[in-house]
Amino acid sequence: MSQIKKINHVAIVVRDIDESLKFWETTLGLKLHHIEDVPSQASKVAFIPVGDSEIELVQPTTEDSGMAAYLEKRGEGLHHLCIEVDDIEAKIQELKDVGVRLINETPQVLPGRKMAFIHPKSASGVLVELYEITAEE
Amino acid sequence: MSQIKKINHVAIVVRDIDESLKFWETTLGLKLHHIEDVPSQASKVAFIPVGDSEIELVQPTTEDSGMAAYLEKRGEGLHHLCIEVDDIEAKIQELKDVGVRLINETPQVLPGRKMAFIHPKSASGVLVELYEITAEE
Repeated sequence: MSQIKKINHVAIVVRDIDESLKFWETTLGLKLHHIEDVPSQASKVAFIPVGDSEIELVQPTTEDSGMAAYLEKRGEGLHHLCIEVDDIEAKIQELKDVGVRLINETPQVLPGRKMAFIHPKSASGVLVELYEITAEE
Repeated sequence: MSQIKKINHVAIVVRDIDESLKFWETTLGLKLHHIEDVPSQASKVAFIPVGDSEIELVQPTTEDSGMAAYLEKRGEGLHHLCIEVDDIEAKIQELKDVGVRLINETPQVLPGRKMAFIHPKSASGVLVELYEITAEE
């Protein structure tokens, strides 16, 4: 059985990363690691380490992505919870075997990680992302 | 300056803890630590360790709490993000000094912990809870 390692990150959808960093970094006192454009997700992401996990501030960079629609409909706030596993293919298979609704039935492969989303309908209304880290930074 | 230690927990508001545990425990494979009644928060809480943090499933136990209203309005899903600090009074003072809107201007004291909420208006739409652990379990 695939093992769960930790909360990799909690993602917060924001309108303007620089504006949001005034709270998370300047006021609250967290340290920004870096900001990265993620064209495959139509977003710009600020990575902020907190203990063994991260907070990610995600700013949509187009108006037609799922995250842009979410921001438009619900406003800024918590968006998804990412759980890190040691074997994402095994975990996806375990979930499919019991009928969990997945947004990605095969993992998306990005540099350093594989990822797949579980549909909120199967997870107490929470958009859950699964991560497997494939290379250390 | 008060130091930030980690994400203490991510809270998910649910209608029925037992029903939600079918996903988080039985299907996803996390291990439930325990379930606790928290009358001061008008809720029942399932504590689920994940790495160095926890997922908390929170089920309102009355119909007139803020969390019950949230559940009614927005449905099940991510509710708040709890950041653990080493000195909650110092952190609250730092936040007040720069005009952050707080729900609790002095910490609530519970067994083993002190807590205070930051208003989502000041935190990218996220309800942020601050925790200071005052005694190990």
